[in-house]
Amino acid sequence: MAAYGGIDLGGTKIQTVIVDDERNVLGSARRPTPTSGGPPDVAEAMAAALSDAAAEAHVEGSALAGVGVGSPGTIEDGAVTSARNLPGWEGSFPLAQTLGRALGAPVALGNDVQVATDAEFQLGAGKPYKSLLGVFWGTGVGGGLVLDGKPWEGRGAAGEIGHVVVELDGARCTCGRRGCMEAYAGRAAMEAHARKELEKGRRTDLFKLMKERDRTRLTSGIWARALEREDELATHMIERALGALGAGVASVVNVLDVECVIVGGGLGIRLGEPYAKRIAKAMQPHLFADFRPPDVHVASLGDLGGAIGATLLVE
Amino acid sequence: MAAYGGIDLGGTKIQTVIVDDERNVLGSARRPTPTSGGPPDVAEAMAAALSDAAAEAHVEGSALAGVGVGSPGTIEDGAVTSARNLPGWEGSFPLAQTLGRALGAPVALGNDVQVATDAEFQLGAGKPYKSLLGVFWGTGVGGGLVLDGKPWEGRGAAGEIGHVVVELDGARCTCGRRGCMEAYAGRAAMEAHARKELEKGRRTDLFKLMKERDRTRLTSGIWARALEREDELATHMIERALGALGAGVASVVNVLDVECVIVGGGLGIRLGEPYAKRIAKAMQPHLFADFRPPDVHVASLGDLGGAIGATLLVE
Repeated sequence: MAAYGGIDLGGTKIQTVIVDDERNVLGSARRPTPTSGGPPDVAEAMAAALSDAAAEAHVEGSALAGVGVGSPGTIEDGAVTSARNLPGWEGSFPLAQTLGRALGAPVALGNDVQVATDAEFQLGAGKPYKSLLGVFWGTGVGGGLVLDGKPWEGRGAAGEIGHVVVELDGARCTCGRRGCMEAYAGRAAMEAHARKELEKGRRTDLFKLMKERDRTRLTSGIWARALEREDELATHMIERALGALGAGVASVVNVLDVECVIVGGGLGIRLGEPYAKRIAKAMQPHLFADFRPPDVHVASLGDLGGAIGATLLVE
Repeated sequence: MAAYGGIDLGGTKIQTVIVDDERNVLGSARRPTPTSGGPPDVAEAMAAALSDAAAEAHVEGSALAGVGVGSPGTIEDGAVTSARNLPGWEGSFPLAQTLGRALGAPVALGNDVQVATDAEFQLGAGKPYKSLLGVFWGTGVGGGLVLDGKPWEGRGAAGEIGHVVVELDGARCTCGRRGCMEAYAGRAAMEAHARKELEKGRRTDLFKLMKERDRTRLTSGIWARALEREDELATHMIERALGALGAGVASVVNVLDVECVIVGGGLGIRLGEPYAKRIAKAMQPHLFADFRPPDVHVASLGDLGGAIGATLLVE
């Protein structure tokens, strides 16, 4: 039986899996993404994280039939260009070749959000549908599309649902533009906003929780904990995020009329089903065909979805 | 050589064409849409308008190989349900059967905006592209999609680009919702807004022009004339519309990354190329992949696009 490797390259962590022919997970591992150095250091950490998973699966790295990588940035001819949030990765780096040499297996690259969407479509919560929109609610808000059973990537840059404008001249987004959905719902933008509110003297336990957990960022777990504690600022800001997600996702549904919306990403998975329901509720007032809203589900492959989806690149 | 009929059923007018095999226009006619009565009266006016075009083309109505109709409302099994802006058309009416009997030719129905988009794709400004978004800027703002060479209609209700939210809790839309693009850019919403401004004492020549031209509505021609005269309210409101169109259309492009945007509809065609350029300019600050904006063109089939597109239903 053949085994395949999958790597989900994120700004915070590198998640790897080893799967069999039927995409059953035989082993998995996670390493932090290097925060300094450059692309060769990231590639080295990726190879090491895949070896960890291979060891757990009792598979030799060189015995893998192929390794798929879901990556941010622009992907062309085995190279990754201008990968956001990765150290020293403004230019182009031949990731497929470098990793292939280190692992002794053929490597294929794909867009991180699109492979996670494909994974949900082929193996997860999207299996019953022919058309779906994946909404990955995390540091940013990414989108992936499956239309009539096939991924839709446009000219290569489709799926930027985080940059759907929900408020003309609205809040400043991390992309530099104004009023994007991500400016209200992305974890990076929410953290920046929360810091400003704290500086203004607003009470919140968000940063106390961050210190208690020895983190440097407001992770999804910290937001979840603050919501459980009914922290006022956290509650207000998540409601604001839900309002933006409701309008932005409903706008895309008005244009595409997909059967299903799948909510993934760090926050989406951590907050889970109750919040997927709240997104569905926030969409409702903006849906034009409101008598037939799309089904809304949480990504059922959870945190491993991106890495499992990457293995589909080497089928 | 076979001849085909095409009918574009609008809220204001019924536009018909007769075309040959290669969709060359042999004759065309236009009648006002009945404003009272019910679906049978509308069907009668449609048959009469098609006969006018057939007479111009020197073709017997019963000699037509088929007649296509682009219609508003929900289309299913030859029936049209809840067609907005048409008199007494809340329920369902067997339009294909009724028209077929009156015309002595087979009748096929399609969505008005989608057939106009298909016409531009197959015969008009969209010919060089494989993926495009049609934006029909008129009484409302309708959208049509061609992705990878094929129309995308979702579950039948796709393309409602007019109801993309550009402003959370924004202006009231004719659909009852808030902040839709159409609430700023649709001619119906703009007329309602202009009337309110007039009542508040704001100076404008819009309604004077309407009376001079013996109209009961602010037509596209009236808006165009008021812009030429540099009417302050008209200029301000069209700028507001362009701002909303820029954000809404760019949002859809961020998600779909289509190659081309085609601007049609009454206002889109009447205002033409300079305003298509202004829409492109208004999109630019909201485009995520701003280094590669889609091409933006005016619908090249003009006012006949919908009717010509309808003939494609009976190929």
